[in-house]
Amino acid sequence: MNGAQSLVATFLASGLDTCFTNPGTSEMHFVAALDDQPDMRCVLCLFEGGASGAADAYHRMSGKVAATLLHLAPGFGNAFANLHNARKAGAGVLNVVGDHATYHLGYESPLRGDVAGVSGAISHSVITAQDAGGVAADGSRALRAARMAGGQISTLILPADTAWGDGGPAATAAPPPALPRPDPARIAAAVHALRQDGAALMVGGPALHGPGLQLAGRVAQAAGATLMAPLLVGRIGRGAGTPPLTRQAYVVEENVMVLGNTRAMVLVGADRPVSFFAYPGKPSLPEPPDCAITDLCPPGWDVVHTLEALADALGASAAPQTITQAVPDIPEGPLTQDRVGRTLAALMPDGAIVVDEGITSSRGASMETVAAAPHDWLHTPGGAIGGGLPNAVGAAVACPDRPVIALTGDGSAMYTIQSLWTMANERLNVVIIVFANRGYQILRLERMNLGLGKPGPNAMRMFDVMDPDLDWQAMARAHGVASARAEDCAGFADALRTGLKEPGPFLIEAVV
Amino acid sequence: MNGAQSLVATFLASGLDTCFTNPGTSEMHFVAALDDQPDMRCVLCLFEGGASGAADAYHRMSGKVAATLLHLAPGFGNAFANLHNARKAGAGVLNVVGDHATYHLGYESPLRGDVAGVSGAISHSVITAQDAGGVAADGSRALRAARMAGGQISTLILPADTAWGDGGPAATAAPPPALPRPDPARIAAAVHALRQDGAALMVGGPALHGPGLQLAGRVAQAAGATLMAPLLVGRIGRGAGTPPLTRQAYVVEENVMVLGNTRAMVLVGADRPVSFFAYPGKPSLPEPPDCAITDLCPPGWDVVHTLEALADALGASAAPQTITQAVPDIPEGPLTQDRVGRTLAALMPDGAIVVDEGITSSRGASMETVAAAPHDWLHTPGGAIGGGLPNAVGAAVACPDRPVIALTGDGSAMYTIQSLWTMANERLNVVIIVFANRGYQILRLERMNLGLGKPGPNAMRMFDVMDPDLDWQAMARAHGVASARAEDCAGFADALRTGLKEPGPFLIEAVV
Repeated sequence: MNGAQSLVATFLASGLDTCFTNPGTSEMHFVAALDDQPDMRCVLCLFEGGASGAADAYHRMSGKVAATLLHLAPGFGNAFANLHNARKAGAGVLNVVGDHATYHLGYESPLRGDVAGVSGAISHSVITAQDAGGVAADGSRALRAARMAGGQISTLILPADTAWGDGGPAATAAPPPALPRPDPARIAAAVHALRQDGAALMVGGPALHGPGLQLAGRVAQAAGATLMAPLLVGRIGRGAGTPPLTRQAYVVEENVMVLGNTRAMVLVGADRPVSFFAYPGKPSLPEPPDCAITDLCPPGWDVVHTLEALADALGASAAPQTITQAVPDIPEGPLTQDRVGRTLAALMPDGAIVVDEGITSSRGASMETVAAAPHDWLHTPGGAIGGGLPNAVGAAVACPDRPVIALTGDGSAMYTIQSLWTMANERLNVVIIVFANRGYQILRLERMNLGLGKPGPNAMRMFDVMDPDLDWQAMARAHGVASARAEDCAGFADALRTGLKEPGPFLIEAVV
Repeated sequence: MNGAQSLVATFLASGLDTCFTNPGTSEMHFVAALDDQPDMRCVLCLFEGGASGAADAYHRMSGKVAATLLHLAPGFGNAFANLHNARKAGAGVLNVVGDHATYHLGYESPLRGDVAGVSGAISHSVITAQDAGGVAADGSRALRAARMAGGQISTLILPADTAWGDGGPAATAAPPPALPRPDPARIAAAVHALRQDGAALMVGGPALHGPGLQLAGRVAQAAGATLMAPLLVGRIGRGAGTPPLTRQAYVVEENVMVLGNTRAMVLVGADRPVSFFAYPGKPSLPEPPDCAITDLCPPGWDVVHTLEALADALGASAAPQTITQAVPDIPEGPLTQDRVGRTLAALMPDGAIVVDEGITSSRGASMETVAAAPHDWLHTPGGAIGGGLPNAVGAAVACPDRPVIALTGDGSAMYTIQSLWTMANERLNVVIIVFANRGYQILRLERMNLGLGKPGPNAMRMFDVMDPDLDWQAMARAHGVASARAEDCAGFADALRTGLKEPGPFLIEAVV
C-alpha cells in the first residue's frame, strides 16, 4: 500500500465512506486509491464550495463525517465559505487537501501557496502529513478531530509524496473524547433560573431535532419556560409532533421584541443571542439588560445529557405538548412568498428536508409550514451565501429516501450554481425553488435599516440582478436539470407536485 | 464625511476609480459612499472570485490598481483563488473587506470569522482600520501597498463602525518606493553569462509585452541568447512585430527538452524554472545540472531598468528581429483544437486580448496564432482554475476598445461561470470559446503521466463532466449572453465572425 491507499483504508475502517471531491493533479494518487475501493462513495462537485457545503449538510443529516478532496491552497480557498457555515452549524467535515511533494515546496511553482495558512483560518485542527508511512495515523487523528465536540472542521494536508510513497498499515480512528458536561450545581442553578417568570430555554445542536428536541420540549414545559432557538441553525425539526418553539428574529428591533419579556435565559447548545449585524445606535445584545444568562452547556458539550439532567431535576416526565398537523388548502391567484409557503405546507411530504437559503424570500415558507407534516429545516448558520444548493446535495446523499426541497433566492443561488449538475449527475431527489426577485433584496432592506435613504445609480447597480434577467429554466437545462416556471399559485402547485413525484432534481422558478 | 466617504474620496484622489464589487450588509456605508461618487465605476460580480479575477486582469492590462469589495471572511475566502492567480501574475489588487463593527466582534454572531487570518494567507499587506478618523490614511497606505513591487495583493479590513463613524479628510496615496535595481557588477556578470554558448534570457513581468518585450528582444539578439519565458505568465505580447520567444513546457520531459541546451540562464523578472507539479522519479528542476543560473532581477524589481542596463552594456542598439504576420486560410472540415486555433489566427483582429484558461484544449490556439495580428495573451499564472472568465471581465473593463477572446474548457469555465452575467450586464465585448470535451482532460493526462494505468469507475466519475452533458447554449442564455454551437470549421468561423462583430459578449461552444 502507498500512503494514499493506507489513508483510504483507514477511512473505510473508521466508518468514513463518502467523499465529495474536486481533485487535481497533486491528489491523483489519492484518486487512484479511491478508485481501488468501490465501498467509498465519491461525489464529483464542479467547484470546491459545492464539496464543502455538501459535506456540511451530510453531517447535519446523518451525523457522519464525510471527506472533501481539495486541490492545494486555491482549492481550499474556494471551499472556505461553506466550511465557515459548517463550523457555525457544528458539523464535522474532514478536508483532504493535496499539496506539492515536500521536496518541491522549496521552489516557486505556480500552485505553491499557504495551505496551512488558509486552512488554519477556519479549521479546528490542521495536520500536515510528513511522510507516507505516517499518513494512516495522521488520517485517523484527523478523522477523530472532525468527530470531536460533536463535529469540527478538520484538515489533513497531504503532500503528493506522502500519498505515493510506501504507506504503513491502515489505522482506525479512536473515538473522540467524551463531551464535557456541566456539574450538578450548575444544573441546579439552571433549574432555578428556568422556573422563574419570563424564563427561556435557548437550545441548539442536537436539542433541535429528533429525540433531543422532544427532550428540550419536555424540560421547557415542566419548568414553564419558553423554548427558543437561534435565528439560523444547522438543523431543526418542525411541523406536526414537534414542541412549539420561538426562533430569534433577524431585524434588531424584532429580536428585541421577541426577547422583550425574557428575565432569565438558560443556554444549552446555543450561543448567547447577538444581533446578526451591528448598526449605529442599535444594540448588539438583544435581551433586556436585567435578563440573567446562564451559559449551562456551550455548543460542543453534551447537550442531550444536560437536557436529561434538567429533566430529572425538574421531574419532567410528561411528553411535551406538540403541534397538531394542520394542512392548508392550496391557495389561488397570483404567486406571493406567503402563497409559495402555503402551497409548500399543503404538499409537503412526511419527512421532507427543507434547505433554506431564501434569505428575505423564504420567510413566508417558514411561517406557513409550522404545522405541516413533520420535516427538518436546514439554515445557513454562518450567513455565508452559497450554502444552499451544496447543502441540498449533501442532505440528499445522506438521506436518499427523503425528499429535499431547496429554497433559494436568485442572488444566493448564483454563488454555487454548479451544484445543480451534481444533483443531476447523482440523480438526487431535490426540488429547487428559486424565488426570482431579481436582486439582492436583503441589501435593499439593509440600506433602509441603516437609514441611508434612496439608493442612487451605483448602489442600484450593486443591488439589482437584472439587465439581463437570469433565465432560470435555461439555467436548469444548462446543468441537465428539468424545470418549470410558475407565475401563479396553480402553476406553482403543479410544478411542485411534478418535482416531488419525478425522480432526480427539478427546479421551479417562482416569480414573486 | 464619514469614514467610508473619506475612503472613497481618498481612492479617487489617488487615481483608483474602478471597484469590482460583491457587497453585503457590513459594507453598506461603503456602498453608500460609492453611490455619492459617480466617478467611481462599480462593476457587480455575482461571486467574489469574479471580482478578484477581474481586478487581477484589470491591472495586468491597464497597470492600474482596482478595488474589490468583499463581505467578511467567507467573502474573502471566495475571492482567494483568483487572488492567488493575481499574486503569481504580479498584479496589484486592493481588497476592501467589510467586517463587523469593532464592538460587535466580541460576540459569536453568524458571520464572525478570521478575516485577518484568511486574508493574511494570500495578501502581501493587511491593514485593519481601527477608527473612522484614520480610515483615509489607512486606505492610502493600503493603496500604496497594492502598487509596491509592480503590483501586490493588499487588503484593507474595514469594520462597519470605521465606515459609518466621523472620518478625517481625504488622503492621497504616496507613490510606492522605487523598485530595487541590480548593481553594475551584477549587470556585468549577467552580460558575460548571456554571451556564452547556450545562454538563455528568461524574462517575465513588463519584459513580456509592449516596449519591455522589444527591449528584451534587443538584449537577447545582441547577446546571441535565446529569449525565454515561463509557461504561464500574466500577460505576453504575441503575433506580428514581437520578437521570437520560447516558452517553457508543462510536461516535465518536454520542459527538460526545451531547456536541454541551456548552459547559462539569466533571470529578469522571472523565477527560476520549476516543474509545474512534482512526480515520482521526475526532476523538480528542468534545466541541465551544469546550467548556471543568474538571478539578476527578481520579480518585483526594476525589470525595464535592468534590461536597459543590459542593452547598454551589450551595445544593443539594433531593433530586434520580429515575427512577420502570416495569416492562414480558414480551415475546413470537422473541428479540432488546431483548427480552432487556425481559424482564430485567420480572424483575430489587431490588438485582441486572449484570455487563456483552455488548459489542455488551447494548446493548438496558442501554436497557431504565433504569427497572427499583434495581440496580448493572458494566462492563469497561479494555476488556480476559475481565473479565465473573471480575467476576461477585467481585461474588457480595462480596454473597452479592444476585443477580448476567452478560451476556456468546459471543466474550467464552471468554477466562475457567473462572470457571464457581468459580461452581459456591462455589455463587454468578450467572445467566449468553450472547448467542450466533457471533462477534466488534464486529469486524464496526469493520471497517464503518473503511470497509474486505466482509471476505474470512481476515477472516471471524478474526471468526466458528462451524464448529463452541460448545455452551453442554455448556459449562455441563462446569463443573458448570445451564443452559437460549432461542430465544424465553417460553423466555427461564422460564429467567431459574429461574436467579434456584435457588441457585447458572445459564447461559442466548440465541439472538439
